[in-house]
Amino acid sequence: MTPFKPQDGDFETRVRESFARQAIMRTLNARLTKISPGIVEIEMPFDENHTQQHGFLHAGIVATILDSACGYAAYTLMPIDAAILTIEFKVNLLAPAKGEKFLVRGEVTKPGRTILVSDGRAYALTADGDVKLVATMTGTLMTVTGREGLSG
Amino acid sequence: MTPFKPQDGDFETRVRESFARQAIMRTLNARLTKISPGIVEIEMPFDENHTQQHGFLHAGIVATILDSACGYAAYTLMPIDAAILTIEFKVNLLAPAKGEKFLVRGEVTKPGRTILVSDGRAYALTADGDVKLVATMTGTLMTVTGREGLSG
Amino acid sequence: MTPFKPQDGDFETRVRESFARQAIMRTLNARLTKISPGIVEIEMPFDENHTQQHGFLHAGIVATILDSACGYAAYTLMPIDAAILTIEFKVNLLAPAKGEKFLVRGEVTKPGRTILVSDGRAYALTADGDVKLVATMTGTLMTVTGREGLSG
Amino acid sequence: MTPFKPQDGDFETRVRESFARQAIMRTLNARLTKISPGIVEIEMPFDENHTQQHGFLHAGIVATILDSACGYAAYTLMPIDAAILTIEFKVNLLAPAKGEKFLVRGEVTKPGRTILVSDGRAYALTADGDVKLVATMTGTLMTVTGREGLSG
Repeated sequence: MTPFKPQDGDFETRVRESFARQAIMRTLNARLTKISPGIVEIEMPFDENHTQQHGFLHAGIVATILDSACGYAAYTLMPIDAAILTIEFKVNLLAPAKGEKFLVRGEVTKPGRTILVSDGRAYALTADGDVKLVATMTGTLMTVTGREGLSG
Repeated sequence: MTPFKPQDGDFETRVRESFARQAIMRTLNARLTKISPGIVEIEMPFDENHTQQHGFLHAGIVATILDSACGYAAYTLMPIDAAILTIEFKVNLLAPAKGEKFLVRGEVTKPGRTILVSDGRAYALTADGDVKLVATMTGTLMTVTGREGLSG
Repeated sequence: MTPFKPQDGDFETRVRESFARQAIMRTLNARLTKISPGIVEIEMPFDENHTQQHGFLHAGIVATILDSACGYAAYTLMPIDAAILTIEFKVNLLAPAKGEKFLVRGEVTKPGRTILVSDGRAYALTADGDVKLVATMTGTLMTVTGREGLSG
Repeated sequence: MTPFKPQDGDFETRVRESFARQAIMRTLNARLTKISPGIVEIEMPFDENHTQQHGFLHAGIVATILDSACGYAAYTLMPIDAAILTIEFKVNLLAPAKGEKFLVRGEVTKPGRTILVSDGRAYALTADGDVKLVATMTGTLMTVTGREGLSG
């Protein structure tokens, strides 16, 4: 485990402000539950409006919160004036996304000046306390600076 | 181009019924605009409730409709009693997902008895008629039969 | 960490026999350095015959030993009569693959009856003892049984 | 199809020189068979020294030539002083890589100033003239300038 050193001491505020501007996070009732250098966690309740044909959470919605967690994990390590863009991600669906709520954790695997790589895990929590790994993500993030109109 | 031969002549009905059970598609106001053997297209309007911090459609929502298009493209070629599961997908984000509406097309690259691979492309359409490729997906789908409670 | 329980107690022999049949592993002078349930490690020396244009190990060769490590990690958990196939993998290149030798570790993230997912990490070791993470892989493996002529 | 416009008219020479410095391409007896703006093709004979346990070409070797084809396709569009790095790639293995020789084609899907995305396809050619798609790749490439000691 490498302890990451943020470039901007106020990374938590920047993450919270950017997250608050992601309208989709409100739509999904997702909320930030942990922010530390290189690590971000998000929780989200099950919602039957977000399901696929078998009644499980749609894989794309799992990908949505995983991408936000992986992205913000990287964002904690970016300089104060940076905007973040996702270049690509890959998701493996390991088990049906059924549960009462979902917890995702994104963690930086490799910080870099321009390119950062984060790995994420999504867990389903059932009413009776079971925790199950339902998906993993590897995401590649880019630090963007000086692009007009793009911040956060 | 390989012309694919469906195993079940009524593949279109099966796709429409399964799609109708994906609550997330209703939530996103997505609709099926093309179903043919090995190919499915879906359209979806821009909605600011589904945006990320820069006001573009969130990458995970782009992934959601890409996954449905890739999955249903594969599903057109599956036997009548099959259920479909996404094993994994990978998405490259090529340009900001901004536009008035989005068109995604999923197409089977490799059909197989158990495993199928589909490739998808997502386009943003602007009010003045521009069309821009914003994302690509490669997805791996599995045919599941005989698993209780799982159909479509 | 889930301690994995192999279905076949003699998994180590099966892995060694299959690995010995991978001619590419001999060509690369790669050798198995650890086999335990759900985990396999492989070491390989640097060889300038396997380099790309900057003199680093070619990313595809890094992928080759990562795929073998991820695959054999999965193979330790497969039944005695199974053959293993790689369905897909994704590799992130995190740093130039330069060093005296390379150590890769593949570990099962999700075992399943038909589909298994492994994650792998490749490290470069320099002459003066530095260890650097140079690449990660996520791979999807399939258990194949009863396909004529396919074993191991 | 977007016709790509190279920034450097002498892209072919640059690709040939860089390819000639990839020792692994000589080791694999791979050769460039096509170079045009945004597209590169490579051919390689079957060699039993590069096989996996079932006697097919190892997936990592398929990935090796796919990565070179995807990378050089991107490199045709880069400026004269650029070096190219692969950030990540994903490979789907669609059929056993058996044949007399292999042809891979890499093609740029999205050119960008810093980040380019290429897609590749690998075909196996048998002695009796059959052609079979055996693998696909999506790769993300980065243009690097001004990094000491890194060219091509």
